[in-house]
Amino acid sequence: MTHSQVGIAITDSAELPQGYLAAGVACGIKPEGPDLALFTSDAPAAVAGVFTTNQVQAPCVRLCRERLAGGVGRAIVVNSGNANACTGEAGTRDAETMAALTAAQIGVPPEQVFMSSTGPIGIPLPMDRVENGIREAVTALGPQGGVAAATAMKTTDTRPKHVTTELGVGGQRIRLTGVAKGSGMIHPGMATMLAYLMTDAAVDAGSLQLCLTHAVDRSFNRITVDGDRSTNDTVLFLANGLAGNEPLTPDHPDWEPFEAAVQAVTLALARRIVQDGEGATRLVTVRVEGAASDPDADRAARAVGNSLLVKTSWAGGDPNWSRVLCALGYSGAALEESGVDIDFDDEPAVRGGVSAGTPDARLRAIAALDTYTIRVDLHQGSGQATLYACDTTEAYVRINVEE
Amino acid sequence: MTHSQVGIAITDSAELPQGYLAAGVACGIKPEGPDLALFTSDAPAAVAGVFTTNQVQAPCVRLCRERLAGGVGRAIVVNSGNANACTGEAGTRDAETMAALTAAQIGVPPEQVFMSSTGPIGIPLPMDRVENGIREAVTALGPQGGVAAATAMKTTDTRPKHVTTELGVGGQRIRLTGVAKGSGMIHPGMATMLAYLMTDAAVDAGSLQLCLTHAVDRSFNRITVDGDRSTNDTVLFLANGLAGNEPLTPDHPDWEPFEAAVQAVTLALARRIVQDGEGATRLVTVRVEGAASDPDADRAARAVGNSLLVKTSWAGGDPNWSRVLCALGYSGAALEESGVDIDFDDEPAVRGGVSAGTPDARLRAIAALDTYTIRVDLHQGSGQATLYACDTTEAYVRINVEE
Repeated sequence: MTHSQVGIAITDSAELPQGYLAAGVACGIKPEGPDLALFTSDAPAAVAGVFTTNQVQAPCVRLCRERLAGGVGRAIVVNSGNANACTGEAGTRDAETMAALTAAQIGVPPEQVFMSSTGPIGIPLPMDRVENGIREAVTALGPQGGVAAATAMKTTDTRPKHVTTELGVGGQRIRLTGVAKGSGMIHPGMATMLAYLMTDAAVDAGSLQLCLTHAVDRSFNRITVDGDRSTNDTVLFLANGLAGNEPLTPDHPDWEPFEAAVQAVTLALARRIVQDGEGATRLVTVRVEGAASDPDADRAARAVGNSLLVKTSWAGGDPNWSRVLCALGYSGAALEESGVDIDFDDEPAVRGGVSAGTPDARLRAIAALDTYTIRVDLHQGSGQATLYACDTTEAYVRINVEE
Repeated sequence: MTHSQVGIAITDSAELPQGYLAAGVACGIKPEGPDLALFTSDAPAAVAGVFTTNQVQAPCVRLCRERLAGGVGRAIVVNSGNANACTGEAGTRDAETMAALTAAQIGVPPEQVFMSSTGPIGIPLPMDRVENGIREAVTALGPQGGVAAATAMKTTDTRPKHVTTELGVGGQRIRLTGVAKGSGMIHPGMATMLAYLMTDAAVDAGSLQLCLTHAVDRSFNRITVDGDRSTNDTVLFLANGLAGNEPLTPDHPDWEPFEAAVQAVTLALARRIVQDGEGATRLVTVRVEGAASDPDADRAARAVGNSLLVKTSWAGGDPNWSRVLCALGYSGAALEESGVDIDFDDEPAVRGGVSAGTPDARLRAIAALDTYTIRVDLHQGSGQATLYACDTTEAYVRINVEE
């Protein structure tokens, strides 16, 4: 599957860039299935990160933040099946130990190892299993291990998420590979999600952070599954420079295509996370235009994309524009009811705050699609925003009641 | 069932105060069941109202607002099965006609008739059926019609909601009766709900509005079912003075017990709305104390009471304090993770941001109850807030997918 950004071909491959190895193994943190992933870089890599904005943060998030200051990453170790959050000082020690065990096994300084945990919160990590898992993962490391690692990161995800693109930078062919996991607690302002980007391009560390921050704003911060925000959200970006290009900065002529490629990769991963949201059957793009300001457009899009009544109507394939209009009304965005237009893809549903008169069957045909766009024009100004959201189904509730 | 406010006995009766009549009839707006309710007062009543804060408002809300200026109410006509919202100018004419038909039938000025509509939005009202319904309802009016009228207001409510209390005011025995309907789209800042209070006390009109505004703040604005806010929310309060007391104002020695009675009635109705929320099986009181300020406490309580992950855990009878802690973390309320305490009723679940060590079975026994309280202490100051919320079940989604 290729993504639609002009000139950037994104593939579903998890082929790693030069010098990266990965592995995914099962060590018994989850009742079944792989639950420990490891990514390593042969060469010290520049590293950038973006983390949850939740005030309650897992120890791994606090430690990753601290380690960013060192500027060098050599490995990322990830467990699923346990978030190691709300676990107090013991949790901090466990996260440190996870990195230290990995560092000892692969022979790098422990502060160059980043770690993530995902799964239920409030339960101590079974460290004996984690230790066995790390030992096994190191043995299993290989250049083809991307899919296995992405699979071991999953919690309620139904499939692993990985994408790759290539481009020319400073005369060198470089590769950019991203892996991610969702799939509940996905909300803008960092989703409950983990994503790791790896490239063999050489990139100046400060510029890498700038690039990642921009890309996250336009991708992972534009998605919502259930409006909850996790304690563990982490996006990391490693750039090991093995492609041999001159380090990229925003002044470099190839910066723009590089940044576009990063944005395309993060957006592709973000869309995959929403499409695979817990119980989700549809991805709906909520596009708001004509708002009084961009923040107003954002408020309007989030009110629609987080409304349970709107999201349950999506689940039913129901082009229920009145619930959209109602959500816009309480969004806080400036609007006049009689000035609101709403389209489902190219079909007008609302004109001037009332039904546009389009035959219901035509709207229903769109609402039955796997992905479509609800476009809102508030006719207040030039503010705009886009949000990627999924429907809320009985399966979502079942998953979260039973978890 | 009696409510626990000191000295105020609330009963489930729908016995109307002196001079009020009510009726509920079926006129075919809904496929089946009663769908038109009428309340009248023999004498001109002082009237107060509180309405939805949604910018998208049904015509009945705008008209009721305008009519409040007249200060006199004689009747309230309500249909269920159709919200007459997002219906443009035709919708406004239909709402006016509803009141005018009622006024003509009972012989009062049309601007003294208030009207509400509830149900799906965006569909024109079938005015021929409404007209027949009004005619039938006028014929059926009677002093025992309260239950029938409350029943005809229902949409997805599983039961009618009505409560009554009596008290002495200025040497007279007065009665205060309230009826309400929920049950989806219930959210603070006005729930999707209709509620009407009627009393035979004489109350100064301005004081009546003050009293109602205070009571709504402490009741209907403290409940949440799904975080959505409707276009039609309306609370009206009629006081026809037939008890013969000197008109009440805040200076009157009996003002305080009167206001307490009004608050007890609105709170009892609000709790019934949450308990009967769409698909709800549990009512959970979220009590936040020790916040840096009251608004901070409010933010914290709403984040918990609106978190889908928290509400699905309630559905499963799961004392999942970690989801509560996570929601507090993104609420925006000032807190230190290591300073948060959480109790389920009297059992400590969290102390200092980590498990309090209470055996899981004891927490589970509480989470299995129909109603319980989650008490949060943020240890930041003296801010406090209470929110009444229900769980989110698969049945909620089923109801709203199919609606």
